[in-house]
Amino acid sequence: MNFEIYRAMEKLSRRTLSTKVPIVDIHTHVYLPRYAEELRARSSAPRIYRRTGADGQPEERLLILDGEPGVGRPVGPQYWERDQKLLFMKRHDIDISFVSSANPWLDFLPPERAHTLAQELNNDLEEYCSTSPQANGFPGLRSIYGFGLLPLVSGISVSSVLDVIKQINTLPHISGIIIGTRGVGNGLDDEILEPVWEAIQQANLVVFIHPHYGVDSKSFGNKTNGHVLPLALGFPFETTIAITRLILAGVLDRYPNLRLLLAHSGGALPQLSSRLASCIAHDPIVAKRLKHDARYYLSKLYFDAVAYGAEELGFVSDVIRRAEAYNSTGGEYNADVGSTRMLFGTDHPFFPPLEASQKWQSVEDNLEAIWSVRTWGDSARANVLGLNALRLFDLEC
Amino acid sequence: MNFEIYRAMEKLSRRTLSTKVPIVDIHTHVYLPRYAEELRARSSAPRIYRRTGADGQPEERLLILDGEPGVGRPVGPQYWERDQKLLFMKRHDIDISFVSSANPWLDFLPPERAHTLAQELNNDLEEYCSTSPQANGFPGLRSIYGFGLLPLVSGISVSSVLDVIKQINTLPHISGIIIGTRGVGNGLDDEILEPVWEAIQQANLVVFIHPHYGVDSKSFGNKTNGHVLPLALGFPFETTIAITRLILAGVLDRYPNLRLLLAHSGGALPQLSSRLASCIAHDPIVAKRLKHDARYYLSKLYFDAVAYGAEELGFVSDVIRRAEAYNSTGGEYNADVGSTRMLFGTDHPFFPPLEASQKWQSVEDNLEAIWSVRTWGDSARANVLGLNALRLFDLEC
Repeated sequence: MNFEIYRAMEKLSRRTLSTKVPIVDIHTHVYLPRYAEELRARSSAPRIYRRTGADGQPEERLLILDGEPGVGRPVGPQYWERDQKLLFMKRHDIDISFVSSANPWLDFLPPERAHTLAQELNNDLEEYCSTSPQANGFPGLRSIYGFGLLPLVSGISVSSVLDVIKQINTLPHISGIIIGTRGVGNGLDDEILEPVWEAIQQANLVVFIHPHYGVDSKSFGNKTNGHVLPLALGFPFETTIAITRLILAGVLDRYPNLRLLLAHSGGALPQLSSRLASCIAHDPIVAKRLKHDARYYLSKLYFDAVAYGAEELGFVSDVIRRAEAYNSTGGEYNADVGSTRMLFGTDHPFFPPLEASQKWQSVEDNLEAIWSVRTWGDSARANVLGLNALRLFDLEC
Repeated sequence: MNFEIYRAMEKLSRRTLSTKVPIVDIHTHVYLPRYAEELRARSSAPRIYRRTGADGQPEERLLILDGEPGVGRPVGPQYWERDQKLLFMKRHDIDISFVSSANPWLDFLPPERAHTLAQELNNDLEEYCSTSPQANGFPGLRSIYGFGLLPLVSGISVSSVLDVIKQINTLPHISGIIIGTRGVGNGLDDEILEPVWEAIQQANLVVFIHPHYGVDSKSFGNKTNGHVLPLALGFPFETTIAITRLILAGVLDRYPNLRLLLAHSGGALPQLSSRLASCIAHDPIVAKRLKHDARYYLSKLYFDAVAYGAEELGFVSDVIRRAEAYNSTGGEYNADVGSTRMLFGTDHPFFPPLEASQKWQSVEDNLEAIWSVRTWGDSARANVLGLNALRLFDLEC
């Protein structure tokens, strides 16, 4: 049975059963209209600019990074209009979306502007969520919730960041934040951020850690490979470095209740986690610094299921499950333990189909992958498809 | 049963059975005496220098990279004396080692010196191998074989590189080469290297691709974390980028019989391979360039088993097995297929024990990991521990 057949059966069962398993997308982006305006007003990256397209019609393009290959990518209503998001959700049977601003967030702005815009965009997003339709079949739930923004930019005061955390606490449809990896200029392992982690833990906000900068593009050479190397490798490398630096700085030891959600299934962290543990154990400078073996921390993290392959997802759930062995006495192999910290996502509106079609292959691949993990049963699949997200965000259905 | 018990039983069986499973180490390094002299004569990294140690005695230290944390690492006879290599092998029951020069090889030398030194070091290594003891219990085999060096440095002529390939063809105990990721200055996807790949394929040399530079250290931030970030993350990232660039350049399409062995279990390539395939499929610049889905190429590669964890090894064998599905019609799940391209290694003399002890934890971890892969049976373990290596290098026992 493949995912298509499963979905057909599931649709059928929705008509006959009183409960159904929701499909919840926790990795789906938006450029709110106010943010798109900010980008349109700029003359250097990140910016949105107009040009005449190949068909002679005007088009808007988005340039995210200076030195980006080509002339950026086409952008349109899918990036900012809520109706487009809802249409996409309907097309892929997604019941609920947790929408987040896309990179580069506010990184390029001076502190004062970042502070103001963060608050305005958080209010915009609350409106975007709170006025969204009821989730079909899930009484009491909306179809859209959100991750807010913090003004994490160079030179900003910590009290300004804490202010915005307070604001987010007042917004009922926003129970998480999305952040990049630079903090206020020196990365997430910067000790100046200590009160920020404390406030985030206190507020019980889910922190979605998402890449933007990749790694130095010189290492990608001078061949024409489109966006492949920065997107396929640079992005996950950046996330891997960021979470590893957080672990090494002891942030996960000091704030054990922080709920960190890693983009793209944690990048390369799962595959490099035993190597990381070995390197730590063999380095006199860090060998005795942490409370646990590095592999333990993987069981404290959350991972989106945006890896496009069943073997990758099964492996991530394996290293999450394994992590418990570094805290306690191991136990029986149970793949479902690992799956409780993995959450379906689409990365919409990125990775659109190359050719116009109804379904997005990138989304189908991620759904098919969840369905095809060899070690997962129905309960694991239901968790990853939606139940984990509802639990993580304290929503009941 | 754990690996210790297995080993005790295996030792017992060696006394009673006519055949035994060899343990073969394909990732083990040397600084040949001539190379160590070259490093001692230098005043900037890479260099070996003398200083007075904490105990008041003179000591030698190795500085591999400029800007390396601390003052480099202690080096001694384990880096250059063959007796030390043999002692290490005996301590860990390793029957046969395929020794390679450690990074940074010849990267820092001007072309003429690199050419001369490559040939001299290849001759030294042939001597080092050919005069090594017979492998105990394996008639006709030596205990040490080697990977040679090519003068892959900026500004060298391709004919000079081809000359050294010819030399290596005359050295009976050297049937592979170890290379870094920079080629002759512009990476391994440089079209100038086309005749080199052709000659390597023709000569049937195994190419061991090994990292040295990592990625830009700025991304590791300014905290004191010893060597952890560059070693645990930078090294595997570099390998991942190098092999991805080779795939994107079509080198694996044009030279399908190249035998490439990736250090550290391929870095992050296995975990990012479905993401890579998706990024390629969605990028108009590369979407139609390659003969196969990116995941297919993993079944054309070889991976050392230096990942320090059973879940990691099992996963690598899963993605190797999966790759066939992108060439043919899939088939039954058979983890042994993947294990035929994975080879035990130690990374000796790196990752020595923090405290003096007989056994190296890093080596024990890798052996225990091979023993503990949930989906591997005895045949898969025997393959990874040694039989794959003998097949790869066309040695019979």
